[in-house]
Amino acid sequence: MAALPPPLLYASTHHCADLLYFGQVEVHDPFIAFGRLDGKKVTVQSPLEFGRVKKTGGFDLVLPLEECRSRARAKFGPKAGTAEIIATVAREQGVRRFRVADTFPAALYLKLTALGLKLDLVGGLLFPEREIKTAREAEHIREGNRLCSVGFTVAERILRAARIKGRTLVHRGTVLTSESLRFALETAIREQGGDPRDTIVAGGDQACDPHERGSGPLRPHELIIIDVFPRVLKTGYFGDMTRTYLKGRPREVQRRMVATVREAQKQALRAITAGVDGREVHGLIVDHFTESGYETRHGKGGSVGFFHGTGHGLGLEVHDPGRISPAVSAPLKAGAVLTVEPGLYYPGLGGCRWEDVVQVTQGPAKMLSRHPYQWEIK
Amino acid sequence: MAALPPPLLYASTHHCADLLYFGQVEVHDPFIAFGRLDGKKVTVQSPLEFGRVKKTGGFDLVLPLEECRSRARAKFGPKAGTAEIIATVAREQGVRRFRVADTFPAALYLKLTALGLKLDLVGGLLFPEREIKTAREAEHIREGNRLCSVGFTVAERILRAARIKGRTLVHRGTVLTSESLRFALETAIREQGGDPRDTIVAGGDQACDPHERGSGPLRPHELIIIDVFPRVLKTGYFGDMTRTYLKGRPREVQRRMVATVREAQKQALRAITAGVDGREVHGLIVDHFTESGYETRHGKGGSVGFFHGTGHGLGLEVHDPGRISPAVSAPLKAGAVLTVEPGLYYPGLGGCRWEDVVQVTQGPAKMLSRHPYQWEIK
Repeated sequence: MAALPPPLLYASTHHCADLLYFGQVEVHDPFIAFGRLDGKKVTVQSPLEFGRVKKTGGFDLVLPLEECRSRARAKFGPKAGTAEIIATVAREQGVRRFRVADTFPAALYLKLTALGLKLDLVGGLLFPEREIKTAREAEHIREGNRLCSVGFTVAERILRAARIKGRTLVHRGTVLTSESLRFALETAIREQGGDPRDTIVAGGDQACDPHERGSGPLRPHELIIIDVFPRVLKTGYFGDMTRTYLKGRPREVQRRMVATVREAQKQALRAITAGVDGREVHGLIVDHFTESGYETRHGKGGSVGFFHGTGHGLGLEVHDPGRISPAVSAPLKAGAVLTVEPGLYYPGLGGCRWEDVVQVTQGPAKMLSRHPYQWEIK
Repeated sequence: MAALPPPLLYASTHHCADLLYFGQVEVHDPFIAFGRLDGKKVTVQSPLEFGRVKKTGGFDLVLPLEECRSRARAKFGPKAGTAEIIATVAREQGVRRFRVADTFPAALYLKLTALGLKLDLVGGLLFPEREIKTAREAEHIREGNRLCSVGFTVAERILRAARIKGRTLVHRGTVLTSESLRFALETAIREQGGDPRDTIVAGGDQACDPHERGSGPLRPHELIIIDVFPRVLKTGYFGDMTRTYLKGRPREVQRRMVATVREAQKQALRAITAGVDGREVHGLIVDHFTESGYETRHGKGGSVGFFHGTGHGLGLEVHDPGRISPAVSAPLKAGAVLTVEPGLYYPGLGGCRWEDVVQVTQGPAKMLSRHPYQWEIK
């Protein structure tokens, strides 16, 4: 197979995880980065970022924007902009053909093509290797999951301390809400270097809509889903875990549903190994639910049962490349890091989800997350 | 002048402020949105987002993704994807020509063009009107600035309570650092519904690099720059303010620098009115600094003096359209909301910046930010 042409990127790392992966340094304004035919990584940086980017060592060659612009202007005239600078520097570095992501900016694509550069839209992943995580990346993700556990611990402490008063939970004299519990656990995560966003703390029927973050008073005797996915600020990698709780007295139907979801997760975890089709892993869970009497149904008012994928890749994005899903039939790859998160959702009964993170190996899946599954809180 | 073709967007609102501006609702996965010739706004939404987006009322027409996909597949075959869905729905709604942002995804641009849609790259702002803020938008920005003030108040309280111990500041038994002060003021902002990111708390020479967030112990008798730009979670609009502090005894040279920057800001604020060239406003500050003996110099090791723009637009992005800068010669527009943030930076002496926010009017600039300028803390 012919080698792919080297990649070309123009974005800020805020908006482009591929660029963060490529250069290993955060820069919040759009900048030029590309690979050379010898594999060396080149970037062009403004004076404001030049020194910092050089220091981090993610690029083999850091060129000063001002000087590149001067050379582009000498060649293309005083209006030379980003496209002309890329064309100039690419030629100097001996590259005439690049691969670019499908999301590469259209105007820049057209200008570069007009300037004679050949650009191949990849039609998929710009860096397929991003799916496979190194030992170091796995450690960064593990740290993200440790921060999830920090959040759960705080949530559990508060739920334990809360008193049941009719249909509300009272903590430190005020009614406990999704918002206040979220704030407390996110603050604990931030204190330890994490950046949690859009954390889900959803009780009762709210938890039956997986996109609902949760709001208002949390109720006793109802299932509460907490789904946290903090970014580790130092490395940029994410953790992603979910635990389910109930403060008060669970009903038998709740107990059975929670146990069924946990058992489904265990079965999936046992099945995950390199080469197994992700769709089959998903199928195991579906079968287990169906056999246990939990049907999935789609209707006008929404879906009930198990209606999302079993897992997704985790890394520099919460949804990194890689899926365990009915929509994707592909063997799981050794080194891939994936969430495993079966759930059941029935309005009236509530929602339950357990989410952990594994790295796929040739043998049993390696757990990258760790936190108890104790969900009943007196 | 012929009317512009209606806009077409495909992005998530996380990554595209134009889309948030257009539809007034946050959706975190990429989705289709466009205008019709009659000005009505159309969007295509997945089942997960359909109900919520419909409820917010930002779009005149919300179409269900599943049904649009079915119609596209009936027409283009079973592999019909985003491009074919857009082509199908655009035709149904009677639009054959759109304007798109320069950052529109290249692969989608090429596919849509091949499907016969005409796409005009705007080469500038997709929504030039975004620069002009309504009274309601101005109120959202004012709320963002109120949150900045909340942060400053917390920082001032901590600096006041801190004790000077040699070259460190001690607060509640521990050494006060950029990190701990940032954490405290960001937490206060979060408690009131703000989302502060990358807040700058930089003392001494660290403050001389405007991109440096600050780290490590804060020193007594040194200038400390605090620059906060929280997003108001409820509306998506940003505040952006900067204050400068010194805990301990200021030297006369520090006093003089701080007063000079404040005087420069006042002059700029007095000069701002509709029709005045932004470059002239910037020039006033440069002149004031030069006349006061503060030279700006650029060298190998970086720049000293005043080497950034005077201000930028503020709205759904921290850097919204609009500039007060030497690089842009254009009359200030009535209704534009702009920061006014002169600064001086000299390693050895430290950095000082005052930043406030105004709305341009036909008369005097209207202040949208409010917080004292008391910088000496005993």
